[in-house]
Amino acid sequence: MSYVGSFQFTVEPFQDDASGRLSWFFLGNHILRVANWHAVSHGFGYEHTQSQSHTWVLSRLVVEMDEMPRTGETYVIKTWVSRVYRQFTDRMFSIESPDGKVYGSVSSIWALIDVNTRQPADLEKLPNGGFAYAIVDTPSTIAPLRRVRMTSEEVALTVPTLFSDLDINGHLNSIRYIQHALNVFPPERHAKQAVRRMEIAYCLETLYGEDLALYVQENDANDYSIDMKKNGDTVVAKVRVTFNPQAL
Amino acid sequence: MSYVGSFQFTVEPFQDDASGRLSWFFLGNHILRVANWHAVSHGFGYEHTQSQSHTWVLSRLVVEMDEMPRTGETYVIKTWVSRVYRQFTDRMFSIESPDGKVYGSVSSIWALIDVNTRQPADLEKLPNGGFAYAIVDTPSTIAPLRRVRMTSEEVALTVPTLFSDLDINGHLNSIRYIQHALNVFPPERHAKQAVRRMEIAYCLETLYGEDLALYVQENDANDYSIDMKKNGDTVVAKVRVTFNPQAL
Repeated sequence: MSYVGSFQFTVEPFQDDASGRLSWFFLGNHILRVANWHAVSHGFGYEHTQSQSHTWVLSRLVVEMDEMPRTGETYVIKTWVSRVYRQFTDRMFSIESPDGKVYGSVSSIWALIDVNTRQPADLEKLPNGGFAYAIVDTPSTIAPLRRVRMTSEEVALTVPTLFSDLDINGHLNSIRYIQHALNVFPPERHAKQAVRRMEIAYCLETLYGEDLALYVQENDANDYSIDMKKNGDTVVAKVRVTFNPQAL
Repeated sequence: MSYVGSFQFTVEPFQDDASGRLSWFFLGNHILRVANWHAVSHGFGYEHTQSQSHTWVLSRLVVEMDEMPRTGETYVIKTWVSRVYRQFTDRMFSIESPDGKVYGSVSSIWALIDVNTRQPADLEKLPNGGFAYAIVDTPSTIAPLRRVRMTSEEVALTVPTLFSDLDINGHLNSIRYIQHALNVFPPERHAKQAVRRMEIAYCLETLYGEDLALYVQENDANDYSIDMKKNGDTVVAKVRVTFNPQAL
């Protein structure tokens, strides 16, 4: 039996963006859905953890897309758990065409949080070994997050947090941070070059009414660091966006 | 053969909102997807019309939900074309549980626009009768749009139009108007009462960089008219939101 889940999608109208390709929102949303489907099939999905007053919280996300599938194209998202260590687990994804061409890869780090105490569970000490049996120990093809010193003191964009931005826990939903980061750039930039890599370190929750100030720093011509802050100086997310130098 | 399309969904994690029920975004997105699936199956979906330089444009949308399905619940969206008249066609939807309980109903009006001239096609004069053969002439269970005089001169909310808000045509996507209308109200209001009815008259396209000013008028304790304007006084959408008077 394989512990790699494999789920097929087609890029449909209303799941694409102005480029005529899968939007980052739906890519991100499908990644979260697929993670849950895979976890459910192995007994550690949201419905299982919620019954034990725990919920999965995304801590780090790195997405690298060599190419986004176009509207009408079929793609497969493969996912597996690659590691369990202390309070964290790594989940990997590969986005491929049905005949095996790789569109891109994703790595993610998750914690299992007690909804009452907000404390993370020790994932190495779950009853009966937890889900360690499902680990597929493959070398990652995706570079880890890279630390960059943020020196920008100018706010490039301020975004409010409104009702439609909230997830079931009443927090700014994980994928909305990706949209905020994309929105730093005008459509003309997105039309010229595709975003190739998106890194997000989720640091703190954002609640209704908390405006986010986006500080943007150009690391080089195609690489940007974006710090998202609330209440003046509290960092809620550190994002890095890298465009493909090659024109679309 | 039945010309009613029927498509089953389950409310998944990441498709719900803070109430633990299907979000208006995903309800709206699925309505558009289902409309396209049904149209494709009868030869008039996006891929067919695009090859003829035409695209479907949503002109009116009325959604009435007696209840939103909860996370984990399965629901069916049925859809059919109920009328073709001059430049317009009416499409109806019924949202039901698998055993036939009605969650809600939707009526919509569409035009088929020439992407070059922006002129609507005469849908009664399409080659070979167009898709008139697929009409299912059922009486509508949903009240039509109701005109209300807007007298409010105060802007309740201003929203920018950013990259992630754009559809494949570079216009503010139809469902984002629904989110804007919901965002006039704080989460506490949404937690207390569900939105029962949402009416939208789409008047003009909204482009990148065009801020929308939302003028809100309370018609009665649970009923609000919302005009969305760009460039000072140009109405792009007229929305009406009605909450269920009964508490959640």
